[in-house]
Amino acid sequence: MIQKSRLFTPGPTPLHPAVQEALARPIVHHRTDEFRGVFKDCTSGLKKFLKTSEDVLMLACSGTGAMEAAVVNTLAPGEAMLALVAGNFGQRWADIGKAYGMEVHVLEAKWGEAVTPEAVGAALDANPKIRGVFVQLNESSTGAAHDVKALGALVRGRKDTLLVVDAISGAGAIRLETEAWGVDVAIVGSQKALALPPGLAFLSVSAKAWDKIGKGGGPRFYFDLLRERKAQAGGESAFTPAISHVVATRAALADLDARGGVDALVENAGTLAAITRAAAGALGLPLVAPRDHGDALTALYPPAGLESGAIVKALKGEFASTVAGGQGALKGKIFRIAHLGYYDATDILGLLATLEIALKRLGHEFDLGAGLAAAETEYLKVRA
Amino acid sequence: MIQKSRLFTPGPTPLHPAVQEALARPIVHHRTDEFRGVFKDCTSGLKKFLKTSEDVLMLACSGTGAMEAAVVNTLAPGEAMLALVAGNFGQRWADIGKAYGMEVHVLEAKWGEAVTPEAVGAALDANPKIRGVFVQLNESSTGAAHDVKALGALVRGRKDTLLVVDAISGAGAIRLETEAWGVDVAIVGSQKALALPPGLAFLSVSAKAWDKIGKGGGPRFYFDLLRERKAQAGGESAFTPAISHVVATRAALADLDARGGVDALVENAGTLAAITRAAAGALGLPLVAPRDHGDALTALYPPAGLESGAIVKALKGEFASTVAGGQGALKGKIFRIAHLGYYDATDILGLLATLEIALKRLGHEFDLGAGLAAAETEYLKVRA
Repeated sequence: MIQKSRLFTPGPTPLHPAVQEALARPIVHHRTDEFRGVFKDCTSGLKKFLKTSEDVLMLACSGTGAMEAAVVNTLAPGEAMLALVAGNFGQRWADIGKAYGMEVHVLEAKWGEAVTPEAVGAALDANPKIRGVFVQLNESSTGAAHDVKALGALVRGRKDTLLVVDAISGAGAIRLETEAWGVDVAIVGSQKALALPPGLAFLSVSAKAWDKIGKGGGPRFYFDLLRERKAQAGGESAFTPAISHVVATRAALADLDARGGVDALVENAGTLAAITRAAAGALGLPLVAPRDHGDALTALYPPAGLESGAIVKALKGEFASTVAGGQGALKGKIFRIAHLGYYDATDILGLLATLEIALKRLGHEFDLGAGLAAAETEYLKVRA
Repeated sequence: MIQKSRLFTPGPTPLHPAVQEALARPIVHHRTDEFRGVFKDCTSGLKKFLKTSEDVLMLACSGTGAMEAAVVNTLAPGEAMLALVAGNFGQRWADIGKAYGMEVHVLEAKWGEAVTPEAVGAALDANPKIRGVFVQLNESSTGAAHDVKALGALVRGRKDTLLVVDAISGAGAIRLETEAWGVDVAIVGSQKALALPPGLAFLSVSAKAWDKIGKGGGPRFYFDLLRERKAQAGGESAFTPAISHVVATRAALADLDARGGVDALVENAGTLAAITRAAAGALGLPLVAPRDHGDALTALYPPAGLESGAIVKALKGEFASTVAGGQGALKGKIFRIAHLGYYDATDILGLLATLEIALKRLGHEFDLGAGLAAAETEYLKVRA
């Protein structure tokens, strides 16, 4: 049988055709007016994507690089930070802070749940030295989403504390009003909702954050945001940009604009997540984040008696569809289906049908078609 | 919502990624050893595809061009031909014959049915002057398939009569043993099972056919197969070849070889056709060719009370999926879902799920998921 390779992973996600075309173009030189124009178009488009009028910088690195940039620019060694740890990526905030000698305070949630704004408020009240709250919009390892709006309301009034949001996999799939909610730094990865390959990260910086960044801090060189701000205001990056990626970013953002912007993209992910949750319910696959789920991906436990790894392997082996397994504490225990980015209903419905076939082959007892019936019913409800 | 454009039409079919990559390469010159090597690789690959050790020529034209080439090379004006007309494309044989002054005899079948070998045998017995039998392997307008093996057995013993098969949309989806079955000319279009864009047609010619072609005939220039045979034996075409298409053809054939060859491709279409027919049965969509269906495509009537055009429009409007409407006598009365070419189970299952949503929106009464349940059940049966 023909098997088309399909990624249903929460990064990388399928490339948008406009991105593929842009990447196939001959390279241009970056110290030119032509490229500066492309660069500035990206900056403008990213501001719309993140809903902010403040600065957005582009960095040639993965999302983790931008996380590091956020930590080392907004905090000086020895300063206190609060890392909300609801999964594998929350832990990364703590790890980066430790690597740079920050005083790391951690608020943990059970994997599959989000840290509550109440807990954050209490921690900030208890420790007024905290200079930054670091959180994931979407915790990719569980599919749980944090209430960034509520966190913004908590942090906004504290003049010496910043809110730094890893929206790497969340932006474009879960609502995010960077400026209106008082997010000081929001980070996005290229290989997520924007349907680009990995290699670029985007980072918004509020005026409040610049005030702090301008007052010194610890060691940094490649990730020196002050130097980047100066260079990027002129349409250049301080160091060699990932040129083709930047050209492709403009193409992705132009297409997004034509399709209704970030709100339409969030709505798309919301619909796909809703039909996936409906199918999961009908098929007896428990949600990893039943209460706090976002719409960037759906993380599922296998039905009783089955291994999640067997499901991942069956989908890959028989249909060449890659869904993600678990990470960290959930490694080998769950599987994850992405909705962020360039997916449509046909993609997800097709995947769910092959999931039914895979589950049946693995011996799970259910009525074939039950998941699809639930998914289609939900689709008609959501898109009534 | 994101809508990915998907073609479920029986030509053009989705391009294979290896084809897209090949088409994106810089062009090469055709009067070079490099290109002659590519050309010869294509010829070898096409022989495997058509299961023949005899000549296969490549022409820069659509499938209809190769049909014309077959008629004008194998027959002289005034000679008698028998056109089997089971739909729109069968009629084309008759039209080409008339345009070149052949004495055209027609055997018609009801649309949705195939002309029986018995009827052909009787016609040949009744009219010994018939010099060629012209037939479709797959009649794209109805999805009916002719019994080419039986026709080959009938014609093989008649030394002055050739069997010419339009396998444009059938080859690679329906079994075809060109040489073993005694097919004198078999025609293939690039934009069908081989997952290339339109622009090339391929044509096998048996020794028996060359005998006749070498004895003169009517006017032709671009489609002079004798001139092409001479040129192509050296890895060149007589006139400028569609260079990039030829390069892409090699890529398509190499990929096909790696995936199990034409038999695997036929099996793939067979599985997709079987699950589509199962879903259609469960959803109350009558087959256009219930008895004589091939596996290149499935042609369906809408359920009572619905217009086929509304279904085509709904799939296109809400999901950007293009299924074909009817042609000729069935225009506006049916819709057609392709299986030939680069489709996998996820494609067809996804389409069937969106078809359920479209039918429900249009007011058709059925249990959501019923078609998918039937399709998945059939899949597990076929791929047990």
